[in-house]
Amino acid sequence: MSRRSTPKSVVKRLPVYLRILDNLIRRDVDIISSRVLSEETGFTAEQIRKDLAYFGAFGTRGTGYNTSYLREKLLRIIGLDKQTKIIIVGYGHLGKALARYNMVKNPYVKVVGIFDADPAEMGAEVEGLRVLAISKLPEVARESKAKVAILTVPAEEAQKVVDLMVENGITAILNFAPTKLHVPDHVYVHNADLTIELQSLIYYAEEDEKTHQTE
Amino acid sequence: MSRRSTPKSVVKRLPVYLRILDNLIRRDVDIISSRVLSEETGFTAEQIRKDLAYFGAFGTRGTGYNTSYLREKLLRIIGLDKQTKIIIVGYGHLGKALARYNMVKNPYVKVVGIFDADPAEMGAEVEGLRVLAISKLPEVARESKAKVAILTVPAEEAQKVVDLMVENGITAILNFAPTKLHVPDHVYVHNADLTIELQSLIYYAEEDEKTHQTE
Repeated sequence: MSRRSTPKSVVKRLPVYLRILDNLIRRDVDIISSRVLSEETGFTAEQIRKDLAYFGAFGTRGTGYNTSYLREKLLRIIGLDKQTKIIIVGYGHLGKALARYNMVKNPYVKVVGIFDADPAEMGAEVEGLRVLAISKLPEVARESKAKVAILTVPAEEAQKVVDLMVENGITAILNFAPTKLHVPDHVYVHNADLTIELQSLIYYAEEDEKTHQTE
Repeated sequence: MSRRSTPKSVVKRLPVYLRILDNLIRRDVDIISSRVLSEETGFTAEQIRKDLAYFGAFGTRGTGYNTSYLREKLLRIIGLDKQTKIIIVGYGHLGKALARYNMVKNPYVKVVGIFDADPAEMGAEVEGLRVLAISKLPEVARESKAKVAILTVPAEEAQKVVDLMVENGITAILNFAPTKLHVPDHVYVHNADLTIELQSLIYYAEEDEKTHQTE
């Protein structure tokens, strides 16, 4: 099965399962039923069984899932069984938050390059890694063979940076710049849009305060 | 129709339409077909027609949608026809990025309070608004009648802050703390999890590099 043929909604739930399993293993829980997984995640037990069945059958009927075994499987499925190298371009407040978070708290990734266009930010050190000029991106991306990038530059700079990323081997981009990026078919872009999340939330905050006006 | 009975997937697409319309109006485009909306958003024309039909019929068959009219409608539907008051709790790198972004670039919200537990951050000014101690949250939330909050505190502080928010009238929370929050039924929490977005992305970056191992 091609990776892209798996429904996006399934792929989005895999890291949620992984986080729950990490927590369970920390609490020495060896076996978990899909019912308990359901309570912890908020997804239905049936949904969970279906999701995991996409990648093979991991549970034992009537007992549940072995937490360590399922975690190992999920790591392999997602591609986190080895540390993924990532680069971060844009070292504003958001870039700083993401750089620090991923270097200190995210064991699954290794930040191999941080870049910014602002000379004032260059040379700054984050956990021993120097912030570099964007002109150094090709060299770092090629030498590290990083495939994943986080983009937090202003909208008007984004496409130029993305072109440079793609030329130098990046195939997956988490984009925080509020603009539509143009990439070749083999490159996957996920737009992480904080305004859109906030606006969806506002919709729910309005509940019961007014009624819809329809034609 | 109750607001919560609208499928989440529809609600998530509304702000995307709004952004596209904002751009079109800026470029003096008066009428847009669902086909062009489809090209701009990546959603199918049929999906778009179905989404908008949830809230009444806005298009004219064969011509398309009037951009300004559709924008006004969407603003009213989402609840952005008046500025939404929000508070932000947690003034680390991510809180700083979100505060600045929402105060400077997001016309639909008005940040009425920024709070942090760290005395070193207190008194800092963002666009004329002072960062306050969390003990001031009840007063600010009640006086402003804010219903929406962004939470960017560490996981271990999150539940305590959320309880305080809920006690003081907050009904919608955009949560960046990597922990599950417990809230009453009338409160809506959206977990904006940057690790999970990154891990889903890594799944796609792995494409064609290996095959799935299944039982």
